[in-house]
Amino acid sequence: MFTLASDFGSPYPAAMKGVLLTEADGDPRLVDVAHDLPRQDPRAAAFWLRFVLPEFPPAVHLAVVDPGVGTDRAAVVVGAGEHALVGPDNGSLLPPARALAGIAGTEPDVFAVDVDDPRSSTFHGRDVFAPAAAAVHDAGAENLADLDRLEPTDDYVDLRLPEAEVEDDRAAGEVLVVDGFGNAVTNVPGAFLDGRVGEELRVETPEGAVTAPVVETFAAVDPGDPLVTVGSHGYVECDVNRGRGEAAFGVGPGDELVLSFG
Amino acid sequence: MFTLASDFGSPYPAAMKGVLLTEADGDPRLVDVAHDLPRQDPRAAAFWLRFVLPEFPPAVHLAVVDPGVGTDRAAVVVGAGEHALVGPDNGSLLPPARALAGIAGTEPDVFAVDVDDPRSSTFHGRDVFAPAAAAVHDAGAENLADLDRLEPTDDYVDLRLPEAEVEDDRAAGEVLVVDGFGNAVTNVPGAFLDGRVGEELRVETPEGAVTAPVVETFAAVDPGDPLVTVGSHGYVECDVNRGRGEAAFGVGPGDELVLSFG
Amino acid sequence: MFTLASDFGSPYPAAMKGVLLTEADGDPRLVDVAHDLPRQDPRAAAFWLRFVLPEFPPAVHLAVVDPGVGTDRAAVVVGAGEHALVGPDNGSLLPPARALAGIAGTEPDVFAVDVDDPRSSTFHGRDVFAPAAAAVHDAGAENLADLDRLEPTDDYVDLRLPEAEVEDDRAAGEVLVVDGFGNAVTNVPGAFLDGRVGEELRVETPEGAVTAPVVETFAAVDPGDPLVTVGSHGYVECDVNRGRGEAAFGVGPGDELVLSFG
Repeated sequence: MFTLASDFGSPYPAAMKGVLLTEADGDPRLVDVAHDLPRQDPRAAAFWLRFVLPEFPPAVHLAVVDPGVGTDRAAVVVGAGEHALVGPDNGSLLPPARALAGIAGTEPDVFAVDVDDPRSSTFHGRDVFAPAAAAVHDAGAENLADLDRLEPTDDYVDLRLPEAEVEDDRAAGEVLVVDGFGNAVTNVPGAFLDGRVGEELRVETPEGAVTAPVVETFAAVDPGDPLVTVGSHGYVECDVNRGRGEAAFGVGPGDELVLSFG
Repeated sequence: MFTLASDFGSPYPAAMKGVLLTEADGDPRLVDVAHDLPRQDPRAAAFWLRFVLPEFPPAVHLAVVDPGVGTDRAAVVVGAGEHALVGPDNGSLLPPARALAGIAGTEPDVFAVDVDDPRSSTFHGRDVFAPAAAAVHDAGAENLADLDRLEPTDDYVDLRLPEAEVEDDRAAGEVLVVDGFGNAVTNVPGAFLDGRVGEELRVETPEGAVTAPVVETFAAVDPGDPLVTVGSHGYVECDVNRGRGEAAFGVGPGDELVLSFG
Repeated sequence: MFTLASDFGSPYPAAMKGVLLTEADGDPRLVDVAHDLPRQDPRAAAFWLRFVLPEFPPAVHLAVVDPGVGTDRAAVVVGAGEHALVGPDNGSLLPPARALAGIAGTEPDVFAVDVDDPRSSTFHGRDVFAPAAAAVHDAGAENLADLDRLEPTDDYVDLRLPEAEVEDDRAAGEVLVVDGFGNAVTNVPGAFLDGRVGEELRVETPEGAVTAPVVETFAAVDPGDPLVTVGSHGYVECDVNRGRGEAAFGVGPGDELVLSFG
């Protein structure tokens, strides 16, 4: 099985699918994760891949958010238990790889891909990463060391999503991503809100401060009203019932915020 | 086979796919119906599911448009011949279930799902409905009564799409949905236009009135001109050739209108 | 295997998938190419299909961009080696069919489809082309002449993408498409830029002129700056690093331009 993720929009991902179906053995399943990931943002890709990929059975995950396409950045394959991730060496694969490896009780193994001169300098998803993913699929994620084109490496771009500073009544963190609903997902672990449902939380941002209740469900506040809750990613989210949290709280990806109780 | 429909945008549906592939037996096919259904609108979901699902062979249809997520609204499975639908108890599954059951000459059977405490209060698509759909898939749509977690129920939210009042030369109805082309699909059955091609139809809306010809094809009027025709759903549509009917006729979902011949 | 392409947006393509899965034998794979192709633009469809389809193994390609739906334009099947394309007779299938046939060392064979009175006059994707594609799939792309409903024809709409006039230091062409990134893809073959990396190219458009460097990668210029490069389609593109080339160069599909060196 392959999953595919990118910031390519349409119809470029279909070209990658054609390559996978032409080059991979057997009759592999292809599942799209998303092709509208935030453009050229390896950190957002890391967040979403870490969120989605652990739901999947063992697969080769082709994930291409690649602001450095055409430069000399490397192509990497990351082994993570029975999973393998294939994409550019910009850190985007490491957070999901650590999550997948953690489930298997192992650590990620990073390999550099020996790349021939590609057909284009602008579409390595088709010309570099999809062929590499097909080769990984055919060899099996647990046999990466046997692949001639792969070389184990310690010299790769790592990326860790920033961690919040959390005290009992106060957490300082930042917005990791804003989803399609406008929900502003922070890096403050949901545990910060344990036992606080019904209390008011002050959210300070670079643009000001908004106070909103801690709730378990969006429907606990009136449509249009702000709320703070634990999202499905396990993090504190700043949201609006049937509206856009990013607007109500005045925040976007990367903005710092301080959450404080009374 | 599973179909998937939601108003989740991206990349949330991929998490549901991961759960289905992890939990369902065999190597089931997954087919996306749409993940950009009108947000939090069970009636629009009902319309589109009733339009699309009858084209499919027997399947488990996972359909999550769920403004009440996290509240105590129930989760339901609806059996409809060899098909089963899984989603929130807000009526959205009943119109397509009646259509599918009607093809099989039966009536829908509604079951409440016994839900354990879910992983999140905001993403029941992943945490409640996808696991239930996997269980339904493995048991078979015709064996729902055998599933321990399902309980037959008469206590569910029903929903029927509104019916138009139709006379020979006049029909009073409303706009059910506006599609991506801007076509305003009404609830007036297409038979109202039988034998009237070439005549002018007056369309009264809350904002005024537009008169447009009844045609068989968009190309029968000039680009930019309004027209009335029978859409592929079998209903009267208010459209514009290469333009947006909703704008030309000044209508949106739920707006009442009166159609009359001179 | 089927691929599907259209300008239908959502959820109409799902109805075509239901028909294919109901009518085609076996358990065929369905792969989406794109359903957001430029609306009612056979030439853009031809460009994108010619770009994507040659990556695929043998398949039946259902491709419906059909401004003439409901008129008396014919339905066609085009055989191209082990591939077959199915869609409206508006030329959109011919450029990809020539590319696919060229790979196989043959020429495309065009067949007219004998169409029964369709269920609707507005959704031939579901009512005409998907059933025809299922029949082609079951017969096999190399046995089109055996299908009762297909008649070989020389009377079809052909379409050839316009060719640029290229000299050593000057090329006169036009913009074929603008992709989702805003990259303006011209019809000037990439060879025009061979050996010119680092030189400045003057791009004259109906709105004025922009001079930009010829580069191999977007990252060779600062974010927001214009560039000219060879895209993954093999054509000269007018782009902006992390921005929209169509805006910076002031061009859209069909606009003529003249590229000249010093």
